[in-house]
Amino acid sequence: MSPEKLSTYLTARRREIEAEMSRCLVAGEGRPPALVRAMRYAVLGGGKRLRPVLALAAAEAVAGSGARRRALRAGCAIEMIHAYSLAHDDLPAMDDDDMRRGRPSLHAKYGEATAILAGDALLTDAFAIVATPSRRTAPGATLAMVKEIAVAAGSSGMVGGQLADLSSSGKARVGLAAVREIHRQKTGALLRASVRVGALAAGAEAKTLRRLTAYGQAFGLVFQITDDVLDEVGDLKRLGKPGGGDRAAGKATYPAVLGLEGARSEARRVARAGYRAIAPLGTRAAPLEALLGHVVDRAS
Amino acid sequence: MSPEKLSTYLTARRREIEAEMSRCLVAGEGRPPALVRAMRYAVLGGGKRLRPVLALAAAEAVAGSGARRRALRAGCAIEMIHAYSLAHDDLPAMDDDDMRRGRPSLHAKYGEATAILAGDALLTDAFAIVATPSRRTAPGATLAMVKEIAVAAGSSGMVGGQLADLSSSGKARVGLAAVREIHRQKTGALLRASVRVGALAAGAEAKTLRRLTAYGQAFGLVFQITDDVLDEVGDLKRLGKPGGGDRAAGKATYPAVLGLEGARSEARRVARAGYRAIAPLGTRAAPLEALLGHVVDRAS
Repeated sequence: MSPEKLSTYLTARRREIEAEMSRCLVAGEGRPPALVRAMRYAVLGGGKRLRPVLALAAAEAVAGSGARRRALRAGCAIEMIHAYSLAHDDLPAMDDDDMRRGRPSLHAKYGEATAILAGDALLTDAFAIVATPSRRTAPGATLAMVKEIAVAAGSSGMVGGQLADLSSSGKARVGLAAVREIHRQKTGALLRASVRVGALAAGAEAKTLRRLTAYGQAFGLVFQITDDVLDEVGDLKRLGKPGGGDRAAGKATYPAVLGLEGARSEARRVARAGYRAIAPLGTRAAPLEALLGHVVDRAS
Repeated sequence: MSPEKLSTYLTARRREIEAEMSRCLVAGEGRPPALVRAMRYAVLGGGKRLRPVLALAAAEAVAGSGARRRALRAGCAIEMIHAYSLAHDDLPAMDDDDMRRGRPSLHAKYGEATAILAGDALLTDAFAIVATPSRRTAPGATLAMVKEIAVAAGSSGMVGGQLADLSSSGKARVGLAAVREIHRQKTGALLRASVRVGALAAGAEAKTLRRLTAYGQAFGLVFQITDDVLDEVGDLKRLGKPGGGDRAAGKATYPAVLGLEGARSEARRVARAGYRAIAPLGTRAAPLEALLGHVVDRAS
């Protein structure tokens, strides 16, 4: 898939995703308007929508265009969880960031209490969205999607990684194994879950699910390595904030352990494993392949 | 059921609940030990365990002693959500409480960042626990339990109520309708969900579920009215903190709107509706009846 075709693909998917996320975050049903406003600010302020795109692309890789609606909703729920994690990460007691994507972060805009509660609400409502039954998906598959997301986002996944990352800050030496484990949890787990949830929504059989899981695993790792490289190189335009912050904060990063070139070559190595895993799925998996290539390229 | 029999009943149930909650919060599977320690501190520091007791008692009211295990696990998950909400409520940006149940609150003990993350992890892991499939419960019923809990805890339930409560602080006049709506969301929704989840775990038919829902609704309301009364009267021993704090903070309370005697009589009136709703279930519902009576009595 050419960069132009990928770009067209992404534009179309993102349009669907924005519309669905806006539908997921509406007033009414007793929701205080001030809470909904903060939730929408946290979620609808841009972003690449990588997680719901992965869910959709994985569902399409399994079944053509079937079961897309279910994958779309689950992907949007994951994006809400991603948004809550950024909002809580930015809090003064955590990373203390007043800016996010080139505008005030959630607590800078609405105050700390509202930012904490809006994050809590995004996380909780995400599960209400995934757990809504649908005629086209068996309850057992939907339940598996809930569990997949909860495990990826919880104490042995994303939140666990965040705490380990905080604890590692300022430590003199962090080895590659520790860096990899922290990032596997902090970022990789939810990206991998995005792919798996799309596959589950589409009713993937065990073998296909295994292939897509291997792809999701590789994707998460490549994403984190290249994110670290971008942070090191510093790319105000792409990240919306000055570079080098993580390294300056003494956090565990790939370039800190492997060097800049070593990190880039590690990203390419892991990506190749991802391509191999989905090769047998043929052209239906072309968007997944192109997405992974796109992530590798951003650091080169 | 006599107070002595209720006391014996509660002791036995709480023993099961403590054991199950301890099993739900274990190290391993990549969980950072510091995170697990904070999560255990937040959950295992005492408390009446009202929510899991309600889930168990509701399941027993439906089916004798069947399906108890499922109700127990779901009840413990709700208790984890309750514990997370207290931990986030106590944060400096929220109620700023350094004490909880007669000992340091979570952030006073482990710091703010850990308290935020441990709360996030408790909320997320609760859904992983509820969404775990079991042979004895249909996936559809388990999915309904997930949805029930997510809706009760999210933006139109508990978190919504917390934000509305914060917004109402210091407002000159809050009417009874507003007080009732805030409390229905903030405390009532999760108590009602505890009862409903127990009923769903036991496979209650529609009519029984409606009866138990009405009971759960009444229970939540009576709980909040009597909580307000206790806060007003001030009962250091029972609440573990000095009384009158909510009224002093200008929060919407029942005694502030109805007066002390008016609030007590309102609690008795609502409780009678709760008794009536479960009367047709007979002796199997005796623990539920006694629990509600116990909550009414604590304010008299």
